[in-house]
Amino acid sequence: MSVQAVVIGANGFLGRRLVETLCRRRNLRVSANEKLPVSSIVLFDVADSSDAFMRRQCDEDSRCCLVLGSLTKAEDTAEALRPRATDCRTVVSFHLAAMLSGQAEANFDGGMQVNLFGAITVIEQVRALGVKLGRPQIYVYVSTDYVACFNDTNRRVPINEEAFRLSPTSYGVHKACVELLVCDYSRHGFIDGRVARISAVIGRPGFSNSVSSSYSMIFTQTLLGRDYTVYPDMDYPYPCSCIDNNCRCLIKLAGKVTAEQLGHNRVVQLPARSLTLRQIWAATQRVAAELDIKLGAITQSSLAESPFSFKSMNVVPAVDHSRAVSLGLPDNVDVDSIIKEYVRRFVALV
Amino acid sequence: MSVQAVVIGANGFLGRRLVETLCRRRNLRVSANEKLPVSSIVLFDVADSSDAFMRRQCDEDSRCCLVLGSLTKAEDTAEALRPRATDCRTVVSFHLAAMLSGQAEANFDGGMQVNLFGAITVIEQVRALGVKLGRPQIYVYVSTDYVACFNDTNRRVPINEEAFRLSPTSYGVHKACVELLVCDYSRHGFIDGRVARISAVIGRPGFSNSVSSSYSMIFTQTLLGRDYTVYPDMDYPYPCSCIDNNCRCLIKLAGKVTAEQLGHNRVVQLPARSLTLRQIWAATQRVAAELDIKLGAITQSSLAESPFSFKSMNVVPAVDHSRAVSLGLPDNVDVDSIIKEYVRRFVALV
Repeated sequence: MSVQAVVIGANGFLGRRLVETLCRRRNLRVSANEKLPVSSIVLFDVADSSDAFMRRQCDEDSRCCLVLGSLTKAEDTAEALRPRATDCRTVVSFHLAAMLSGQAEANFDGGMQVNLFGAITVIEQVRALGVKLGRPQIYVYVSTDYVACFNDTNRRVPINEEAFRLSPTSYGVHKACVELLVCDYSRHGFIDGRVARISAVIGRPGFSNSVSSSYSMIFTQTLLGRDYTVYPDMDYPYPCSCIDNNCRCLIKLAGKVTAEQLGHNRVVQLPARSLTLRQIWAATQRVAAELDIKLGAITQSSLAESPFSFKSMNVVPAVDHSRAVSLGLPDNVDVDSIIKEYVRRFVALV
Repeated sequence: MSVQAVVIGANGFLGRRLVETLCRRRNLRVSANEKLPVSSIVLFDVADSSDAFMRRQCDEDSRCCLVLGSLTKAEDTAEALRPRATDCRTVVSFHLAAMLSGQAEANFDGGMQVNLFGAITVIEQVRALGVKLGRPQIYVYVSTDYVACFNDTNRRVPINEEAFRLSPTSYGVHKACVELLVCDYSRHGFIDGRVARISAVIGRPGFSNSVSSSYSMIFTQTLLGRDYTVYPDMDYPYPCSCIDNNCRCLIKLAGKVTAEQLGHNRVVQLPARSLTLRQIWAATQRVAAELDIKLGAITQSSLAESPFSFKSMNVVPAVDHSRAVSLGLPDNVDVDSIIKEYVRRFVALV
């Protein structure tokens, strides 16, 4: 008996890291007391010229297999999920793909197709595979802290897994709908679904014009020697997560946490730390000093003068991830380590 | 210039009452300072042998027009929405149709088709009509207090319009998804959507095997001279609404409340009163004495011995309808009046 892992959105920032993490493992836990050898790792993403990472992984690890297609097409998703090994009765799929918030705002119908109907297409294919294999298949849907948008209730009550909020973006609305549907499909026994809500992943290279990007770019840019203008208040705490900790959580959430432990509500807030820009900048300076990197300078401005469409931090300062901790998920979110990991991978001076 | 009203689900309990209410009106308010003559009232429902009510309304009021079809079919919905009068630039649609909770549990895929994809089909047709008529059309989606399911947060925080909860039923999950989508489509300006969340409508004739039905059948049955067994605790408060007040609220929510007043969140909890079975029974006895009706007897049992699938009152005792009041919606929910109205319509002794 073996297990197949499928990474839907394998070419994204989180997807690539999850693929690497999976490739380092010989076995995967598929229930509290069942560990199976990984016979296949399917890398599923849209056809794109930037697929060098995925092709390299397939060259390096014979278990890897590339599927290029669209999750909105039932036949493409079925092909990604199809068990490769004859002894495979368990397929664990990780759904990381989405049309991101800015794009789903600009292209409303495309966002509906990918983020809502596409996710339902995937869930239906996981359900159909469960019928074929004789038991509900494990499906890990990666959601985001869209719930942390500001409103009166959020100001009074910490955000947790019972909150499904009206997001100020279409992207967040789609996430909320799919979270609810994953719980409902699981309750009916059609799939064995789990929803991982992740907070902002900081340390992503490149530019982004969202408000939250300041929490990443304050170190990703300055550590490359570039000056950077910061728009949000330096003392506003914002929930941030660690990509490696997120990957470890996804794998544990897929196999170690049981359906019984989750019950009807399949949502888990993955561990985050509320960090201020001042704290991140202090950590950046510590890391730069330790590794002898010449930092760019930062300039403080204000959101009113920012190029962002949102002119306020429409997000609550903290989320409650106590459920993740109580389920035994790893909780290693440390800003110095996140920054050092960014340097190791993307600054390459160490 | 005239307005067309469309009642989607015109043959249901609430639908019939709304049709009657609309037929009594010559004009409808379509914005804070614009009242238009009602040129057409479209009664839209599935083909069913029990359509006598709808045919009679069409005979009695020349403005009424019957459309039999399925809201899951874009062409049927488009036909229902199509403006009948040449001077009609505003179509107000009231969406009351759904596959109800028990049926959507038993027929999961049917529930998804009607309650989720069907509602999206309707919203898309309202959007398309808005493009044709040059402005977003008014769409009133009737939701339910699915949000009032019990969980730890609900025990601490009163249910209000910021709560989108994981319901223990597929029906409730579909309602939550559509509520969120109505807000999002409205934010984009595709429709002018409003969501009316109604609490349990008591006074519906006939049998039902849901837990909440006790709050209705304790008087609907005994006033017909039948004995009735009550399963929930006599002192458990349960939010109940009044059908006539709901109809008046729907019409005001459609036309008097402005999009600006609602803002991004288009959800309004319609007025309810938390009533115990003891209070309803006392009112039943008062009404019976006043109208000289011989009542059946009640027997108290327990939920453990009930025929219901749910063995607990999985609902919070109160909802917060202060937003409805602050928007100027009527708040006439009085148990004696509800019971008298039931007698007038269905016991017919007065």
